[in-house]
Amino acid sequence: MSRTEKAVVLLSGGMDSCVCTAMARARHGADKIALLHAGYGQRTEARERQAFEGIAEFYGVRERLMVRLEHFRAIGGSALTDAKIAVPENKLEEAGAHGSKIPVTYVPFRNAHFLSVAVSWAEAIGANFIYIGAVAEDSSGYPDCRPEYYKVFQDLIRVGTRPETQIEIVTPVIAMKKSEIIRKGIELGAPLHLTWSCYQSEQEACGVCDSCLLRLKAFAEAGTPDPIPYKGKALAQA
Amino acid sequence: MSRTEKAVVLLSGGMDSCVCTAMARARHGADKIALLHAGYGQRTEARERQAFEGIAEFYGVRERLMVRLEHFRAIGGSALTDAKIAVPENKLEEAGAHGSKIPVTYVPFRNAHFLSVAVSWAEAIGANFIYIGAVAEDSSGYPDCRPEYYKVFQDLIRVGTRPETQIEIVTPVIAMKKSEIIRKGIELGAPLHLTWSCYQSEQEACGVCDSCLLRLKAFAEAGTPDPIPYKGKALAQA
Repeated sequence: MSRTEKAVVLLSGGMDSCVCTAMARARHGADKIALLHAGYGQRTEARERQAFEGIAEFYGVRERLMVRLEHFRAIGGSALTDAKIAVPENKLEEAGAHGSKIPVTYVPFRNAHFLSVAVSWAEAIGANFIYIGAVAEDSSGYPDCRPEYYKVFQDLIRVGTRPETQIEIVTPVIAMKKSEIIRKGIELGAPLHLTWSCYQSEQEACGVCDSCLLRLKAFAEAGTPDPIPYKGKALAQA
Repeated sequence: MSRTEKAVVLLSGGMDSCVCTAMARARHGADKIALLHAGYGQRTEARERQAFEGIAEFYGVRERLMVRLEHFRAIGGSALTDAKIAVPENKLEEAGAHGSKIPVTYVPFRNAHFLSVAVSWAEAIGANFIYIGAVAEDSSGYPDCRPEYYKVFQDLIRVGTRPETQIEIVTPVIAMKKSEIIRKGIELGAPLHLTWSCYQSEQEACGVCDSCLLRLKAFAEAGTPDPIPYKGKALAQA
């Protein structure tokens, strides 16, 4: 593979997608990556978009697409998109890490929407790669974050696009532990201070939702402080 | 399978999806079908939405979801979503019927977006079936209208949703000729007069785009007049 080939990178603004972006940039170069952000009516939509823009600016990537998938809020069925379903707090084990149970923060079939936008855009602009920062094991246990899911989606691209279209899905952090992702990000100089992971707060991270708990645990394991602000001084030192 | 099981039906407002809806209703009943319409910035978006609403009213289906996928216009890459790419006229053979070539009216990876919304909605409302009126052979030759595409998408649902979720994609007209679809629609009393197929006009169908040419040819083969208005009297008699 040549370094000059173009890649669409899904960048939510979280830690995993930020490091995924750093890896894509290291491989393809900033002028050959196109950054895609999809808002979906989630609680922290505005904050995540801000994180996306900050990271895109940091890397000087000009080719960007921000889309809004409004229908997720109408569809609901998830604590992230339906205000009537509470985001669980301090319940990481129960919430289904390691696939024991699908947590209420699962957004039905969400990643298929993101990947579909990525494939349409990639086919239109002639990109040959799609990067997505899905994490399988050391995460929340969502079905659409597992390697077998991306294998099938790869098949779908093969049968569902023009015969001449060649698009490969790349999941560079899927098998990594969160702490390894942090170390990789630090190694590559990724702007982890610009990322946002919290499911429910937009000024200071709550520190108690699944996403914050996984993140804080990972920074603790990596032996480095989390650079983003948390509610309460104690948490920031976790 | 019980007739009481719930189905999401993708209804664009075209002839094929109208007959597909008629078939789903005959099998499940009007109170067990949920109608989904996705606008995607296509030229005839408003007219297709009107067709959707007319057909939904005709069948008295209360559960409806209309979504707008705004990003297709930003992405472009198709004569249907990019005003700079002309819709071919009077060029059915060249336009790639029977898979010889993918026509410029192909919208990159479009049906994956529609199916993703359908799966998310089905999973949220507990529907076990998704009906889509894709037609493989006797159509424009789009890659995402072929049986193998739906087979892979079925796999994607299996690996990408909750373990307890059971959703089957049903493509009841995929192997039919367009003229057979018309006969089936007439047999079921489907409101073909409310449908809209034209790619570029919204008052009277143009009669010269791929979609009109396929439709007029099919009505001629079925030996019955097309009930919708066409530009020019001669075409209406075709």
